[in-house]
Amino acid sequence: MFYHDRKLQFPVRVEKPNPHFAKMLQQAIGGVEGEIRVCLQYLFQAWNSRGPVKYRDMLLNTGTEEIAHIEMLATAVALNLEGASADVQEAMAKGDGMVGAIMGGTDPRHILSAGLGAMAADANGVPFNGSWVVSSGNIAADMQANVYAESTGRVLATRLYEMTDDRGMKDMLAFLIGRDTMHQNQWLAALEDMGGLKAAMPIPNTFPQSQENTDVNYTFFVTSMDQSQQGGQGRWNSGESIDGKGTFRTEAARPFGDVPQLGKPDKQAHAQAEQLDGDGQSSFLSAAADFVRSV
Amino acid sequence: MFYHDRKLQFPVRVEKPNPHFAKMLQQAIGGVEGEIRVCLQYLFQAWNSRGPVKYRDMLLNTGTEEIAHIEMLATAVALNLEGASADVQEAMAKGDGMVGAIMGGTDPRHILSAGLGAMAADANGVPFNGSWVVSSGNIAADMQANVYAESTGRVLATRLYEMTDDRGMKDMLAFLIGRDTMHQNQWLAALEDMGGLKAAMPIPNTFPQSQENTDVNYTFFVTSMDQSQQGGQGRWNSGESIDGKGTFRTEAARPFGDVPQLGKPDKQAHAQAEQLDGDGQSSFLSAAADFVRSV
Amino acid sequence: MFYHDRKLQFPVRVEKPNPHFAKMLQQAIGGVEGEIRVCLQYLFQAWNSRGPVKYRDMLLNTGTEEIAHIEMLATAVALNLEGASADVQEAMAKGDGMVGAIMGGTDPRHILSAGLGAMAADANGVPFNGSWVVSSGNIAADMQANVYAESTGRVLATRLYEMTDDRGMKDMLAFLIGRDTMHQNQWLAALEDMGGLKAAMPIPNTFPQSQENTDVNYTFFVTSMDQSQQGGQGRWNSGESIDGKGTFRTEAARPFGDVPQLGKPDKQAHAQAEQLDGDGQSSFLSAAADFVRSV
Amino acid sequence: MFYHDRKLQFPVRVEKPNPHFAKMLQQAIGGVEGEIRVCLQYLFQAWNSRGPVKYRDMLLNTGTEEIAHIEMLATAVALNLEGASADVQEAMAKGDGMVGAIMGGTDPRHILSAGLGAMAADANGVPFNGSWVVSSGNIAADMQANVYAESTGRVLATRLYEMTDDRGMKDMLAFLIGRDTMHQNQWLAALEDMGGLKAAMPIPNTFPQSQENTDVNYTFFVTSMDQSQQGGQGRWNSGESIDGKGTFRTEAARPFGDVPQLGKPDKQAHAQAEQLDGDGQSSFLSAAADFVRSV
Amino acid sequence: MFYHDRKLQFPVRVEKPNPHFAKMLQQAIGGVEGEIRVCLQYLFQAWNSRGPVKYRDMLLNTGTEEIAHIEMLATAVALNLEGASADVQEAMAKGDGMVGAIMGGTDPRHILSAGLGAMAADANGVPFNGSWVVSSGNIAADMQANVYAESTGRVLATRLYEMTDDRGMKDMLAFLIGRDTMHQNQWLAALEDMGGLKAAMPIPNTFPQSQENTDVNYTFFVTSMDQSQQGGQGRWNSGESIDGKGTFRTEAARPFGDVPQLGKPDKQAHAQAEQLDGDGQSSFLSAAADFVRSV
Amino acid sequence: MFYHDRKLQFPVRVEKPNPHFAKMLQQAIGGVEGEIRVCLQYLFQAWNSRGPVKYRDMLLNTGTEEIAHIEMLATAVALNLEGASADVQEAMAKGDGMVGAIMGGTDPRHILSAGLGAMAADANGVPFNGSWVVSSGNIAADMQANVYAESTGRVLATRLYEMTDDRGMKDMLAFLIGRDTMHQNQWLAALEDMGGLKAAMPIPNTFPQSQENTDVNYTFFVTSMDQSQQGGQGRWNSGESIDGKGTFRTEAARPFGDVPQLGKPDKQAHAQAEQLDGDGQSSFLSAAADFVRSV
Repeated sequence: MFYHDRKLQFPVRVEKPNPHFAKMLQQAIGGVEGEIRVCLQYLFQAWNSRGPVKYRDMLLNTGTEEIAHIEMLATAVALNLEGASADVQEAMAKGDGMVGAIMGGTDPRHILSAGLGAMAADANGVPFNGSWVVSSGNIAADMQANVYAESTGRVLATRLYEMTDDRGMKDMLAFLIGRDTMHQNQWLAALEDMGGLKAAMPIPNTFPQSQENTDVNYTFFVTSMDQSQQGGQGRWNSGESIDGKGTFRTEAARPFGDVPQLGKPDKQAHAQAEQLDGDGQSSFLSAAADFVRSV
Repeated sequence: MFYHDRKLQFPVRVEKPNPHFAKMLQQAIGGVEGEIRVCLQYLFQAWNSRGPVKYRDMLLNTGTEEIAHIEMLATAVALNLEGASADVQEAMAKGDGMVGAIMGGTDPRHILSAGLGAMAADANGVPFNGSWVVSSGNIAADMQANVYAESTGRVLATRLYEMTDDRGMKDMLAFLIGRDTMHQNQWLAALEDMGGLKAAMPIPNTFPQSQENTDVNYTFFVTSMDQSQQGGQGRWNSGESIDGKGTFRTEAARPFGDVPQLGKPDKQAHAQAEQLDGDGQSSFLSAAADFVRSV
Repeated sequence: MFYHDRKLQFPVRVEKPNPHFAKMLQQAIGGVEGEIRVCLQYLFQAWNSRGPVKYRDMLLNTGTEEIAHIEMLATAVALNLEGASADVQEAMAKGDGMVGAIMGGTDPRHILSAGLGAMAADANGVPFNGSWVVSSGNIAADMQANVYAESTGRVLATRLYEMTDDRGMKDMLAFLIGRDTMHQNQWLAALEDMGGLKAAMPIPNTFPQSQENTDVNYTFFVTSMDQSQQGGQGRWNSGESIDGKGTFRTEAARPFGDVPQLGKPDKQAHAQAEQLDGDGQSSFLSAAADFVRSV
Repeated sequence: MFYHDRKLQFPVRVEKPNPHFAKMLQQAIGGVEGEIRVCLQYLFQAWNSRGPVKYRDMLLNTGTEEIAHIEMLATAVALNLEGASADVQEAMAKGDGMVGAIMGGTDPRHILSAGLGAMAADANGVPFNGSWVVSSGNIAADMQANVYAESTGRVLATRLYEMTDDRGMKDMLAFLIGRDTMHQNQWLAALEDMGGLKAAMPIPNTFPQSQENTDVNYTFFVTSMDQSQQGGQGRWNSGESIDGKGTFRTEAARPFGDVPQLGKPDKQAHAQAEQLDGDGQSSFLSAAADFVRSV
Repeated sequence: MFYHDRKLQFPVRVEKPNPHFAKMLQQAIGGVEGEIRVCLQYLFQAWNSRGPVKYRDMLLNTGTEEIAHIEMLATAVALNLEGASADVQEAMAKGDGMVGAIMGGTDPRHILSAGLGAMAADANGVPFNGSWVVSSGNIAADMQANVYAESTGRVLATRLYEMTDDRGMKDMLAFLIGRDTMHQNQWLAALEDMGGLKAAMPIPNTFPQSQENTDVNYTFFVTSMDQSQQGGQGRWNSGESIDGKGTFRTEAARPFGDVPQLGKPDKQAHAQAEQLDGDGQSSFLSAAADFVRSV
Repeated sequence: MFYHDRKLQFPVRVEKPNPHFAKMLQQAIGGVEGEIRVCLQYLFQAWNSRGPVKYRDMLLNTGTEEIAHIEMLATAVALNLEGASADVQEAMAKGDGMVGAIMGGTDPRHILSAGLGAMAADANGVPFNGSWVVSSGNIAADMQANVYAESTGRVLATRLYEMTDDRGMKDMLAFLIGRDTMHQNQWLAALEDMGGLKAAMPIPNTFPQSQENTDVNYTFFVTSMDQSQQGGQGRWNSGESIDGKGTFRTEAARPFGDVPQLGKPDKQAHAQAEQLDGDGQSSFLSAAADFVRSV
């Protein structure tokens, strides 16, 4: 269960409220790279955790920390939306051109729906979506999802950092960027803790590789019409594979299969008459119809 | 631009059509771990690629291959939905109990909306969502997104493999699992091609670490009430950080900030009277209203 | 069934077309606080209504009225998007700064997708979502959903009222604000009609309170680390509960439960090897796999 | 900021794992009536809170408590998905009919995507959506949103209670139902704390009622073709309004407005030629095109 | 504005309640082929209508009729979910196998969220989405959208017809199928009213064809690797085009363009260092950052 | 399976980068009228194709071509977002007013999330949605869906054409507009290939019209209160129907059905007590509860 402190994890100061920046900060709250996502992702991974308890504990600590990051950013949005900033008023006084800037790059729902507060949405007002929360039941896949989340998260935070020269905002973002550095390292450390990348791969490492198609599992396929373009010559074209369990090679893509042959349409599915020349028929639909009728 | 071959990349055979399995296969088509996602993700990364052209070429090859994987799976869904399977008919003949199985685990839209074909949706009929397509403009972040996608993708494929003993389906999935093995290796090879993980981290590696908060960038924060639970003792608690640029340490989480103080509600935002005891006011909303009125 | 009158419920006049305001009005059409939502909500509640017929009739009347409100707002959007307004042309003539205002705060899809008409979307172009339509089968819960909808709806309408000084728009909004006043009263009147709030609560009133956990059903839990912060001293800390069936008290939050213990991962779900040290296993997945294979 | 305890707020025991019930419990996690919604809703209301600090503190306490409720339900899902339940195995042994029950009412993504864990989705696998999080900036509207959320939440929990006779699940749900009782009372207590419903209404109470359309603000409009059906005779047809600021009356709905007249289509918006017979034209689109071209 | 009649447009009788069929009927209510979509689509087209008023009137009549179709289907769902059907009880008495059928193919939210009523969602519980509502501002494009909607709508209705042998449901669906026949004809009649398909095409007919690329506007491109597969020989390969304004021809697809060349990544967008070897830079991002900082 | 050429199908040149236009172009990539939609739509129709193989081949050719259109537009977005355009810099130099234009009409996620590249989203940043992909299993319905898609697609492209005077962009759009002309003709040619519109209608043509309600299948219903408004006199009011299988007539809408009667609420669904006066009860819910409890 959870407790709170009324204080923020890190100070949130806004020297000069800026509704454009408030809109941009929403990406770090409710966007696919944002804090609601990592918060729920780490907590669900903890709650669903099976196996050694230390990973669950680790996830619970960091998931809980992330709630505080949402809080900081929501506070930053609210502060950027408020205030009798002399600069803004002055700009307004300058006339029509500047007001365009004011309305233009802002989110109207910050006014209309939230009354000058933060929302669970991204920088375009698209709502947070639970499909982004990854908890796969395989801890190595989860760690990769977390490394990805912290990578795009840190990229986003550095871009926000560049967009402002408000000292308070830069300090807050520098804190969040620092935490992203730690978390990128942390999830990779967890993989190392389990034996390292080679041991972990290919993820999941519990599926016997003898059962996968071993003709193609270390082959780079070139689909280019001009086979001289082999995806560029790179580490992926030849040499030992990263997992140490195979050797990269490069081949021209070609079909191993044939032209697919589907059966005739099912009569009860009401295809057009022109599709029905023949006698094949799907029994599944007929059976389904019989069943629904028979209950 | 693109060309096609009427033949499939790998043979798709279904020995015994199974509408339950058709429903499950949808997760590999239109789900967050599925092939539409990786196809669009690699293609958008290629199309948006800036910097050395070899990465663009690599991405274009693999993105193009993934279209063929959607095709294989869509064919597999259509084949699983059709046919006069004697086994199914026999089961139907057994009576009421079995028909429950027939309708129960199937997707009604496979009949109602698609006429026994595949859809751009997941195993629960939730439509594919473009927000899953990651193309960040930072190639290392993109590679991490790709490693994650292929990790959860291979986990999904191995689970589907376990769910069927149709030889044709197992062969197709073994092919896809093999390709996932290659692609996990491939994206990590690209990172190695760029100098390896240490050089790449923290992602993005173009933001000077001196500007991030260096007090907290290698610290594991423990939010647990019982500080003896330090996230379990693990690789992440102490020692050199994975990126080789810091040293892990562990600290109790505590607030660096204070209780946040927002201003009074804006009058024109029509908060309740009870919120308004005071004289503060946000000039942004007033300015915005003035502007909208003035155009 | 339904009929229409070509005339509007209330006049919609736009003195000075304003595409920024057209964008804002979309929130009142297709937003979560908007008219499509309440229209469908009241109609679905009517159509699903079980119990005394007078509530169904009441809902049908007001649901039907709301269609006319969508119509008024759609008309207002179309009118705000059109016209050879001299003011706008003049602003354009003033030069570059003003055109920024024109494009900036507008919805490009008003031009590109709707050809200067209204859309079933909110002020950010996010489509209307059917999940907002509440029809719970419990009439008191539905009435609370309706009071909420009309409360945020009226807040939205008053904010739109502040954003414009177009007399026609102010008149239309004053009408809608007035109707929201009625509808707030109406849904509460329906609750009173059923015996009042005390009789209705806790909703649903058909679940015997003896079966709920009576140790905690009137307790305010304080999760704050500093117990002196008791959520502020307020009506909710002590005294008779609002439903008259209990007494408020305040307690520090504490765990009644223990650390959760999940079983080992299922082998066929392909967790990582490192999660599998032990012999527990979920039979559900195994059974599921056996079943899917056996059909 | 936030802290955690490894222990649960209330014990979660599952006597007999039931994947059907796991699917149903998802509604209470990621559904519109679920705990992620109320958790984020109360926390965003706290973080955006302007005005007396006691309301912020109250919201922070309860928002923090709700995280623990998500945790309990996620644990319950994981426990219902696992285990070597003798009953299930026995049912499987009984043959084909029962396996239909096993697959039929379950969520395939519990296996395929989550590896027998909980997801941020509803009982149909539809992802949690951030648009449900209400934080309007008007505290009375927010309280109404919260009363609604706890009303449908308690209705949901009582239905789940009826669906199971697992003693552990019933105990957990009885706890959650008890908390819903408290929270329904709590949000109404907050309204009372601010002066009670009459003072609060119509929400927002800061918009002068003299500016709303006072001809229609306490009128029940009858849209029925048969005017004898006046929405049923009820509390809403006559007598003092609930807010004490008006008198209910009933009238036949009729148009106050006229047939709307939109202008001719804009030439550059490429309507069909048949729509263009005339010379009217929208200058907005022309201006917009000029602008985009001119940048 | 709108009025209602308490009576249904067509009788809705359910002889034998069937919750499986209730789930399927949801597709016709809230699915992409369903009645909420066409209802809102025709009404928005009417409300946004510019040009001859007769089309607006036509759309208003049919849009209003469609509300009655949602009502009929919602009633059908509610009736299919209720009742003390002896057959179902008997099936339940038969034991475990049959209950699988009962839960399996049903929507748990019909119980949990709607209390045995209809929802604004499709057969998988995916909510209605406003993006489906087409109102383009070009009446010919709108008519094509309507023909499509009624085509997939009638296909859906005929499949539902096949799924039931409940006489009441068959009668209701026969009515809806008949109406779909009319509406397919009606939208094509509107196109004929405007001069017929040749005059209408290519839609929009107000864009001068001399401005489109006349080298490719009647060419069927073959992307197949085997040019002997020319999309099959069909009406589209040669002969006069359908719009009578060109001649079909067939060509092998080939690139008219060259390999695309994007500039170097912008420094402030924090690509990886490895992408930055060069001196190009996007001034847009720099300018944007300067601006946000300068407000 | 699929192959690629590094070259574009048609040259993409941007003379003067324009981030506003980049935002608008997104509608043609990830919007409901966009190229991802038609690409996936034609490919899924091909992959699901049953019946004569020539239609499958045709669809596969055009679906493959559309991938190249996404590629062209993504390239156009990337090019519009980049570059050291002197004009933009000059505008920036002009001062505050112009920077408003720069930020205002742009998509912040083009910077924050995509690093100056294209996204799988529309012009408002709303993600592509798989529900738009139509593949119904009835080829005539699919062709109508395709005609609609190309009609709104061409309308969109002509509007984009009007918005720019960048010669490169106009050339690219003229190419796409030309292809839309072909594709509108192509899908109608396919219908003609199958025997023409009369033979195809009503779609599906495999459902015997004797089974639809023949009292209403060619009747235009007037829901207007003023029966003199008969939807305007048009082709749809009288004369032979378009499909040649009936005669249009016009009638006043009236109810054929009666007031619907639903049963009492189910006790276990926990309606309010006030809804329960009577003894009716739904056995379905009771049975369901019994079942879930009994597994």
